[in-house]
Amino acid sequence: MAAKTDYKFQGWAGDAPDSIEGKLKWIDYEPKEFAEDDVDIKILYCGICASDISTLSEGWMPMKDNWPQVVGHEIVGEIVRVGSNVKNGLKVGDVAGVGAQCDSCLKCKYCDDHKENYCHGGMTQTYNDKFHRTSPGSKSWGGYANYWRGPSHFVFAIPSQVDPAQAAPLLCGGATVYSPLKQYGAGVTAKEVGIIGIGGLGHFAVLFAKALGARVTAISHSDHKKEDAIKLGAEDFLITGENVPDAIKGRERSLDLLLCTSNAPDMPMDAYLSLLKPGGNFVLVGVPETGKLPDISPFTIIMNNVHIGGSAIGSPDTIREMLDLVAEKNIQPWISKYPLSKVNEAVPAMVAGKARYRFVLVNEENGGKM
Amino acid sequence: MAAKTDYKFQGWAGDAPDSIEGKLKWIDYEPKEFAEDDVDIKILYCGICASDISTLSEGWMPMKDNWPQVVGHEIVGEIVRVGSNVKNGLKVGDVAGVGAQCDSCLKCKYCDDHKENYCHGGMTQTYNDKFHRTSPGSKSWGGYANYWRGPSHFVFAIPSQVDPAQAAPLLCGGATVYSPLKQYGAGVTAKEVGIIGIGGLGHFAVLFAKALGARVTAISHSDHKKEDAIKLGAEDFLITGENVPDAIKGRERSLDLLLCTSNAPDMPMDAYLSLLKPGGNFVLVGVPETGKLPDISPFTIIMNNVHIGGSAIGSPDTIREMLDLVAEKNIQPWISKYPLSKVNEAVPAMVAGKARYRFVLVNEENGGKM
Repeated sequence: MAAKTDYKFQGWAGDAPDSIEGKLKWIDYEPKEFAEDDVDIKILYCGICASDISTLSEGWMPMKDNWPQVVGHEIVGEIVRVGSNVKNGLKVGDVAGVGAQCDSCLKCKYCDDHKENYCHGGMTQTYNDKFHRTSPGSKSWGGYANYWRGPSHFVFAIPSQVDPAQAAPLLCGGATVYSPLKQYGAGVTAKEVGIIGIGGLGHFAVLFAKALGARVTAISHSDHKKEDAIKLGAEDFLITGENVPDAIKGRERSLDLLLCTSNAPDMPMDAYLSLLKPGGNFVLVGVPETGKLPDISPFTIIMNNVHIGGSAIGSPDTIREMLDLVAEKNIQPWISKYPLSKVNEAVPAMVAGKARYRFVLVNEENGGKM
Repeated sequence: MAAKTDYKFQGWAGDAPDSIEGKLKWIDYEPKEFAEDDVDIKILYCGICASDISTLSEGWMPMKDNWPQVVGHEIVGEIVRVGSNVKNGLKVGDVAGVGAQCDSCLKCKYCDDHKENYCHGGMTQTYNDKFHRTSPGSKSWGGYANYWRGPSHFVFAIPSQVDPAQAAPLLCGGATVYSPLKQYGAGVTAKEVGIIGIGGLGHFAVLFAKALGARVTAISHSDHKKEDAIKLGAEDFLITGENVPDAIKGRERSLDLLLCTSNAPDMPMDAYLSLLKPGGNFVLVGVPETGKLPDISPFTIIMNNVHIGGSAIGSPDTIREMLDLVAEKNIQPWISKYPLSKVNEAVPAMVAGKARYRFVLVNEENGGKM
């Protein structure tokens, strides 16, 4: 069936750091040229990710001449166009999504090894980036928009059992925590898992660590989210308060894996690391806007044989595996919805930390359901 | 055969930070009370370790009321007394040694798991520490001395094929690098190994990484030690010079494992980490006297999935395994000898960085051979 392909690409764009204050503007833009391994998606839902905020606010790095930006990399919609060289079975009408990565070189050893998220130089992010492989130099545009176009290799069919709106924030936020939980053996070699920070990423992390069979300790500054953490599946809750070393007394070397979803620049790293058993891993997925890790004592890592690592999003294989697990275990992310037309209310609410635990923009004109 | 046990314990002690300037004094001291799982060793050789210097100089931490200190934790000698409860086959007359750890609780899960070097709270270091398990509260005394007394669990028979003088610095310096090389799969899962810093530890690391089957890249500030590194077994040599990011261009993601024996407080961590393949490990064994790791960008570890870990000395099992490897492969540590009586020349020479690559003190009165 030939689909209508004369749609225009339009989205909510930021053109300055203060765009996060409710100043995104609806613009027309030109997507990459359609390649025969691309698909077009009519967007139904798009999650709001902390990365969207740090990008627009220039918290991580200056935007230089990359304005305007349509952000959003937790995109779910209906496939409306499929190139002749699309090989992963996607077809027009499928509900599918794309996460934070939308292309890679597809030929380096990491891509060959199904670790496209660590592609050796050819990764394209879903926004604030440029394509290299096809339509080289063309800008990537995100999901606060009506349509999305990009390589099918990074587009995933959403299992029919999974609510497409809930699926959206899984594609970056969910994958970002599922991937290291899997890599570092949550529930298998890492039976005792701590999740630092109970926000958007942290809530996914508790859900997934539990689903993978780990005993979960939620670690948070205050007790405000204790009830939520227990509902999400945590069996233990550690309130760090003002004096983290005091708070953790008696819990030293109790955890196999610590997933750190906080991006606080002043995290008490030595205290956190002392929670790990020898051989344990502290894995960072939040990025402090200061651009450097908080202070760490070499004695702490040497005398305890602990590791500080980091993990970036998830590979396509990992994302598919995650979606299957969500379907199989009926995992329910906690989302609340805003109409896409109210993005200039939703983004400031996200900045104000009001998400419990993930906001999803709904494109009602395209058929998204509030 | 009953051995003579009326010897006095005497050694070269520091009593202030300037003792490293050639001011160690020969003193009498009282060792721990002899326990039935202890042995006494008539010391023949003792390596000079960088830890000895950092301890005496108070570079790591103030000595407070722990003066005087007889340092030295790379001790080899002849066993002259064996307690009735010694279970690992040591007997009077054996050539045996002890490294940086001389006791642990021997009952926690880490001790049970043969990881006594990560004992949960009960480790006793060979000097500047106190015993807990037997003779609790008694001070530990190191090897710049004529006799040593301590728990047999941490005393190792030196294989007959290994020169006892060369064996001495293996017991801390050698174990400190052998243990992480083994743990992180040098030659097995980590085929490409980089050694940062070609000093005492680094020279052991090149020898062991090569012996374990890895391809070794020696990484050093200048080309001064290039020839040595090649002789030790390195196949590649990376001169970092003044601009490390420039120096490593083209070598990004080329190594599986980086063992960092440098303790420079200003190490360019991001540049070093960029040498690692995704999934790779940077393992710290040198301790900067600043007490904190140099700055690290979270993006570096997140976007490359690399790990920063640390490793402390080696467990008894690991040390025995290392000694067996040294015997089997006829590994030859590069040492130079000073008579123990000239310790006040040897220590300043060590401080001045003159070791190529390890100094060993020889107790000629006890029969050590220059």
